[in-house]
Amino acid sequence: MNKLLRDLTDGERTTIRVLLSSRSRGVTAKGAPYLSFVLQDKSGTMDAKYWNVPESALELYQAGMIVDASGDVLSHNHQLQFRIKQLDIVEETVEARSFAQEGPLSVEVLRERIEACLENIQNENLKRLIDAVYEKYRSDFYEYPAATKNHHDFVGGLATHVLGMLDLAEMLAAQYPILNRDLLVSGVFLHDLGKLQELSGAIVPSYTMEGRLLGHISLFQAEVAKIAASLGIEDCEEVTLVRHMILSHHGVYEYGSPVLPMIPEAEVLHLIDNLDARMNTIEKALNATEEGAFTPRIFALENRSLYKSKIKK
Amino acid sequence: MNKLLRDLTDGERTTIRVLLSSRSRGVTAKGAPYLSFVLQDKSGTMDAKYWNVPESALELYQAGMIVDASGDVLSHNHQLQFRIKQLDIVEETVEARSFAQEGPLSVEVLRERIEACLENIQNENLKRLIDAVYEKYRSDFYEYPAATKNHHDFVGGLATHVLGMLDLAEMLAAQYPILNRDLLVSGVFLHDLGKLQELSGAIVPSYTMEGRLLGHISLFQAEVAKIAASLGIEDCEEVTLVRHMILSHHGVYEYGSPVLPMIPEAEVLHLIDNLDARMNTIEKALNATEEGAFTPRIFALENRSLYKSKIKK
Amino acid sequence: MNKLLRDLTDGERTTIRVLLSSRSRGVTAKGAPYLSFVLQDKSGTMDAKYWNVPESALELYQAGMIVDASGDVLSHNHQLQFRIKQLDIVEETVEARSFAQEGPLSVEVLRERIEACLENIQNENLKRLIDAVYEKYRSDFYEYPAATKNHHDFVGGLATHVLGMLDLAEMLAAQYPILNRDLLVSGVFLHDLGKLQELSGAIVPSYTMEGRLLGHISLFQAEVAKIAASLGIEDCEEVTLVRHMILSHHGVYEYGSPVLPMIPEAEVLHLIDNLDARMNTIEKALNATEEGAFTPRIFALENRSLYKSKIKK
Amino acid sequence: MNKLLRDLTDGERTTIRVLLSSRSRGVTAKGAPYLSFVLQDKSGTMDAKYWNVPESALELYQAGMIVDASGDVLSHNHQLQFRIKQLDIVEETVEARSFAQEGPLSVEVLRERIEACLENIQNENLKRLIDAVYEKYRSDFYEYPAATKNHHDFVGGLATHVLGMLDLAEMLAAQYPILNRDLLVSGVFLHDLGKLQELSGAIVPSYTMEGRLLGHISLFQAEVAKIAASLGIEDCEEVTLVRHMILSHHGVYEYGSPVLPMIPEAEVLHLIDNLDARMNTIEKALNATEEGAFTPRIFALENRSLYKSKIKK
Amino acid sequence: MNKLLRDLTDGERTTIRVLLSSRSRGVTAKGAPYLSFVLQDKSGTMDAKYWNVPESALELYQAGMIVDASGDVLSHNHQLQFRIKQLDIVEETVEARSFAQEGPLSVEVLRERIEACLENIQNENLKRLIDAVYEKYRSDFYEYPAATKNHHDFVGGLATHVLGMLDLAEMLAAQYPILNRDLLVSGVFLHDLGKLQELSGAIVPSYTMEGRLLGHISLFQAEVAKIAASLGIEDCEEVTLVRHMILSHHGVYEYGSPVLPMIPEAEVLHLIDNLDARMNTIEKALNATEEGAFTPRIFALENRSLYKSKIKK
Amino acid sequence: MNKLLRDLTDGERTTIRVLLSSRSRGVTAKGAPYLSFVLQDKSGTMDAKYWNVPESALELYQAGMIVDASGDVLSHNHQLQFRIKQLDIVEETVEARSFAQEGPLSVEVLRERIEACLENIQNENLKRLIDAVYEKYRSDFYEYPAATKNHHDFVGGLATHVLGMLDLAEMLAAQYPILNRDLLVSGVFLHDLGKLQELSGAIVPSYTMEGRLLGHISLFQAEVAKIAASLGIEDCEEVTLVRHMILSHHGVYEYGSPVLPMIPEAEVLHLIDNLDARMNTIEKALNATEEGAFTPRIFALENRSLYKSKIKK
Repeated sequence: MNKLLRDLTDGERTTIRVLLSSRSRGVTAKGAPYLSFVLQDKSGTMDAKYWNVPESALELYQAGMIVDASGDVLSHNHQLQFRIKQLDIVEETVEARSFAQEGPLSVEVLRERIEACLENIQNENLKRLIDAVYEKYRSDFYEYPAATKNHHDFVGGLATHVLGMLDLAEMLAAQYPILNRDLLVSGVFLHDLGKLQELSGAIVPSYTMEGRLLGHISLFQAEVAKIAASLGIEDCEEVTLVRHMILSHHGVYEYGSPVLPMIPEAEVLHLIDNLDARMNTIEKALNATEEGAFTPRIFALENRSLYKSKIKK
Repeated sequence: MNKLLRDLTDGERTTIRVLLSSRSRGVTAKGAPYLSFVLQDKSGTMDAKYWNVPESALELYQAGMIVDASGDVLSHNHQLQFRIKQLDIVEETVEARSFAQEGPLSVEVLRERIEACLENIQNENLKRLIDAVYEKYRSDFYEYPAATKNHHDFVGGLATHVLGMLDLAEMLAAQYPILNRDLLVSGVFLHDLGKLQELSGAIVPSYTMEGRLLGHISLFQAEVAKIAASLGIEDCEEVTLVRHMILSHHGVYEYGSPVLPMIPEAEVLHLIDNLDARMNTIEKALNATEEGAFTPRIFALENRSLYKSKIKK
Repeated sequence: MNKLLRDLTDGERTTIRVLLSSRSRGVTAKGAPYLSFVLQDKSGTMDAKYWNVPESALELYQAGMIVDASGDVLSHNHQLQFRIKQLDIVEETVEARSFAQEGPLSVEVLRERIEACLENIQNENLKRLIDAVYEKYRSDFYEYPAATKNHHDFVGGLATHVLGMLDLAEMLAAQYPILNRDLLVSGVFLHDLGKLQELSGAIVPSYTMEGRLLGHISLFQAEVAKIAASLGIEDCEEVTLVRHMILSHHGVYEYGSPVLPMIPEAEVLHLIDNLDARMNTIEKALNATEEGAFTPRIFALENRSLYKSKIKK
Repeated sequence: MNKLLRDLTDGERTTIRVLLSSRSRGVTAKGAPYLSFVLQDKSGTMDAKYWNVPESALELYQAGMIVDASGDVLSHNHQLQFRIKQLDIVEETVEARSFAQEGPLSVEVLRERIEACLENIQNENLKRLIDAVYEKYRSDFYEYPAATKNHHDFVGGLATHVLGMLDLAEMLAAQYPILNRDLLVSGVFLHDLGKLQELSGAIVPSYTMEGRLLGHISLFQAEVAKIAASLGIEDCEEVTLVRHMILSHHGVYEYGSPVLPMIPEAEVLHLIDNLDARMNTIEKALNATEEGAFTPRIFALENRSLYKSKIKK
Repeated sequence: MNKLLRDLTDGERTTIRVLLSSRSRGVTAKGAPYLSFVLQDKSGTMDAKYWNVPESALELYQAGMIVDASGDVLSHNHQLQFRIKQLDIVEETVEARSFAQEGPLSVEVLRERIEACLENIQNENLKRLIDAVYEKYRSDFYEYPAATKNHHDFVGGLATHVLGMLDLAEMLAAQYPILNRDLLVSGVFLHDLGKLQELSGAIVPSYTMEGRLLGHISLFQAEVAKIAASLGIEDCEEVTLVRHMILSHHGVYEYGSPVLPMIPEAEVLHLIDNLDARMNTIEKALNATEEGAFTPRIFALENRSLYKSKIKK
Repeated sequence: MNKLLRDLTDGERTTIRVLLSSRSRGVTAKGAPYLSFVLQDKSGTMDAKYWNVPESALELYQAGMIVDASGDVLSHNHQLQFRIKQLDIVEETVEARSFAQEGPLSVEVLRERIEACLENIQNENLKRLIDAVYEKYRSDFYEYPAATKNHHDFVGGLATHVLGMLDLAEMLAAQYPILNRDLLVSGVFLHDLGKLQELSGAIVPSYTMEGRLLGHISLFQAEVAKIAASLGIEDCEEVTLVRHMILSHHGVYEYGSPVLPMIPEAEVLHLIDNLDARMNTIEKALNATEEGAFTPRIFALENRSLYKSKIKK
């Protein structure tokens, strides 16, 4: 049973061990209940339907469980779908972790490159602040996704996104002398760490009560204030500036930034956060589309479709 | 020299001791520089022009100074204006405080009524939090205005606004059983305390750098988190709820709330903050208008004019 | 057969006498027609499905009928649903009235408290106008809902909403001297009476042709003008002011107010209409939610979810 | 003294009898008061400044007065301006009427053509309603402007605008069989009659208190309801439909229509009201511009500039 | 087999030759696939379902095919629907053209009236430009629809819409002397010709890649520039003006006009394009509605419902 | 007379040879006319006032003239201003060019680096298109500003902006494999070339009639279509894609893009156009501000102020 989701083919009848990454209940027009799942392993995800689920089993299966799913693989709307015939909960100890989707870079590579970048910070106050934050959050930081959907929604997605932004930050700091490289790098590292508090975990993340009522922006702004106070640097301008960068990085009020960017590094943080997220979103959408065709409308791109061109490089 | 601004009459030539509460420089069409001031004492404010200011004195006078102003009182656009002939800076020690506009209630009355209300909090966690905050901020709290213009823009204005809202909160908590009175009262007390950090002082307030880059909402949300941590109650639901109430009390993203009200007390806090501020704004506008006439357009009322009716009660 | 809807439990097979308060026709994916109903009695409402309705009976059942419904009570999406096996139209004379949902206060209490408030009007012109309107509309006034959904959607809902607003009006008139109590009370009483013309009836209300083409705001503004003319007070300022209050009480153009509030009483009328409606909406939503959980998104609250806290008072 | 404003030329010193159609007071940077007027006679208008007005005369001159103005005509920003040296109020009886700007068509022509159109109404209910309204408002109808600025802002402007719309209505009713000609013609005639109540008069119009608090749309909708009631046809569908057309003719909520067009005649009424007004606005703007040049930005055209082309027809 | 779709009646079992004008695949709640079609012939369209389609035939039927459909006609939601039992592809040569919906006017009438209008152009530059464009596009012009849905969505719809606008243009040019008739007529003719490039064909039109990436407005603006260059009149003001009219005719940025109307003829072009399209949309909606009833909400009319009145002309 | 504007100091009386880069006429409150200018040489610009201009000279001085200006340099609102006493038009032949503001890079450097980038294009169709366009527009391209105000508003500004974007394009094409480097580079080069048609010239640019009525986006899209047609590659996908990139590069409809980005290179083109323009705008604003202070509100940054921090790198 080493088969992976990405290996399945249309028409195949099989049994496969997967994580139930989401679960919802429906009812057919005839009044019969059924269950919908998203199956997940490290190779990707697949939608599944359990049409003739026994009444007694309706409440049995929950998101986050590891199961052996038996059934048929069928093509539906140009996408493979798994029609479940039987679903057995795996009793033995299995780590959900091993069913998480993998990103393009390993944790080791991410850690090495990000640490190299942070170690390069020369400003004393920023150095102390970033070191303290890194020490406290480093373990979760390399696990969490950057978002629950849309972009970088895999294990290590947050660190992958941060690394992409750090690369952009270094390039822009070199091109535009007006930018303070240390401040920009610090802001990039800190900007989304509140998601470690906003989300319930790295594998099957949901929003916490605190996350919904306060939001990751406000949660981490307060956290930085508290850590800075414990280091005795709360009143340094650098600390105010990175707090401002956290608060303003969504760029507009409508997306939950209570203040708008008022220093060049905050403006750039917002722009490269947006740029790296969009590149990841676009890549995912075009990978699933044929040359010469248009993608479905993409919510995160203001509901536009994208065209995948046929020209060669 | 005990004369007050509200005693001056059209055509009068006089000398009066006042605070310069704002100062700006202009230039006439002929190229001559002049100075514009707002004069202030505890009875109110009056616009002033210094037309033939000597070149040497152009940079002499700054907002926040106490001066003896000599000149003529004239009517301009139905409002009295002071045309300055001479301006002497008062060298002796005078407290700017004594030139601050007074509100309708004394500090003593405000303190007595607000403390009575806060003492009535039964919830243990809220009680401890509010006590600690009150202890730390009580002196500034009774001094600051609620806003630099628009509504409650006088010494003690913030406390006056809070008291008005506390009265409404008690009434509504009695009328709508769904509301938690202690939570609502706590939110009313805390909601605008960030203005003590956002503004530079009680008398001639301007925005601080921290105030502009972070905003009073985020400043005090972080402060409550820190104080709660020091009391060991940071993870209590009550603390999360009052932090949420602070963050959401502007009611919409466009006015700087990063999250919108998600508990009934947060919704009510927003509504009564709005209601009490509007009542004060309307009262000021109608007091300056004759019966049967319309006020000028009022920015804080979505640019509407108000009509002052002639009917008797 | 004295059982009420609120007494039914999951899994129960029963027969119950109810009003069909809405009816719509659907078709299953296999092409079979079915009927959806909302069942109603004075204790509340319940969704119902009639899956295997005989072809001949498809057009038989209409909203507004009293029926004996036989079938099973089942839980669907955490809510009870009635699966109809048989549906018998009640031939004997039954008053739809007796199946109407009841509000928290009886008509007697509503009448007594509202009349006490109106009798307190001292202004002569307002007194005469309100008396004439009350005389003409008093019977319907205590029957109609305040809205067909969202808030106060029960028999007597309009009067219940008006009473809630009158209580707020009295409190605010006491707190803010700028408000004319008689004018405010009159506006509260009149503001939504156009719904008696806009809706087809108190029990299973739908919108009339006049209601859709003219709207309750314009219908009743014209009615007040006509009644005032018949009293010879059409040109009194009081009449113009209450007509203005009716027109402006939705507060913004987008919700159908052709003019915006321009007197303090109109502004307050808009604010307390909003406040009381929101409190009722919130109460309904939280009553249907467990402590520590979030409600579904609520359209009338700008699509926000609400959190029901666990803290005790 | 038979000279007219349109006869004046740059550099001329003269005395001319005019109506003061607006008056405002300013103050120079040096603190000296001055008066600004718009002078008007039947040939048009001209801006005027009275720079060295004696202090004693500041409150003497008011809008609506007839005066003999003496002074110089000068070119300022490519427009002629009158610099007043002396201003004598005309004591003898002069009718303001004779100083009103004239439109392109005489009252006689307007009356003849509009009456011909109204007489053609065949629908009995509409016929009775229109006759009653026409009888009551016919004298003012041929005097009032259609707006105080923007379009058709001359004596008889309202009737001129209505006639332009009636011509369009007849053409469209002939081209689109779906339109009821009598209903459309009735709506065109009635749609703006509320301006007779909203404005203070035909010559130097200002907004009445009722006009500001209720608006011409609501004023006349109520008036039509009252007149229809007096004719015993209040409940006829035709009356509801013309009330709907009056209410909806601004086309969007933001411009004060409480309901939006829901019958084809209401939609067309809105479109041709807009079309005829825009044509008049554009004509005025282009008449004041040279070929090959752009007009200033025009508020009533969403702040666009227009280009006046050089091509010949 | 000469039967047409408009002749079918509820309950009828029949076979009919039709064009499949759209095709989509669904899946029932039980997991069974089915096909949805819109059937079309020159008399109109009808929705169809093929519930028990054999697995082998699922990919067989495509939009654009001519078929003989056998099955039952049933009433569903007050509309007739065709339940397909069998579907045979017509192998013999049949022109899709003969199944296209017909408009109210024949191609001959359209051509005669449009050519008469264009021949009347006196301006030399416009004459040459229009002649060249007409020569190149005349055959497609009389075939294409004006839109794929909403208004004038039949064969010849574009020419029908243009003729309706030309009639309005002539009337308005006669009523408003400010308008240049030749320029307006030219703009009307050219404004939507880009749809011949944007859509894939006249019968079962879809959007081309160029159409989606560039849009009909930009496609034809460039085409006019190229044709004008080939005539040596690229720099004539007339050519710039018609290019401007093409670009601006959607009237607002949101609908894809990169510039807004800046000459009177461009403003009028936008207004009559809108007017004629709305009249066609309204006519279609009211034709499908009973007197005294409201239509469903109409997307192209800002989601309003329309009322179909009962009054007689 | 080799003095430059940036050498002038407060209080200096001098004569200086400058270009009049803008000119407007005003009138003082006393009715006296005066002239306002912006003086310009290669070192920068300075505002100037000519208060007591002789009546006879009012129409003498026009934008674009080279003059010798005599007068006083004074500080006004923290900025130097030139008060003109005398203004002599330079009769001898002077090239306006030599008074143009200079950018940071010479034409030689710009040309060398941009040509290196373009030469690197491997795609045959793009290569031919870009070569043809470059050949036709290369001389103007290195002269024009990128905008008439806001960003890169100096001679060579357009090429400077394009070079900044090309550097970003190369970096991003290396970081995100999904991007086609040749397509992106081509789009960057072409995107704003329409400004060579939209603006009247490189030195004192104003908008042409064609520029206002058609816009640079539409002008150059048509130009690319025409050049591609002359090369016989009009129907190649590459040409459609760069036309799409030109049309969509403003990113939203409101700024005049008739279509929105639908390929990744178009999205990136929009993002880096925005990024480079913002960096230039921010740099200009912060250069004119002291450390620890806020800039005035900046229109091109959504009206935000920026803070210039005091921290050292």
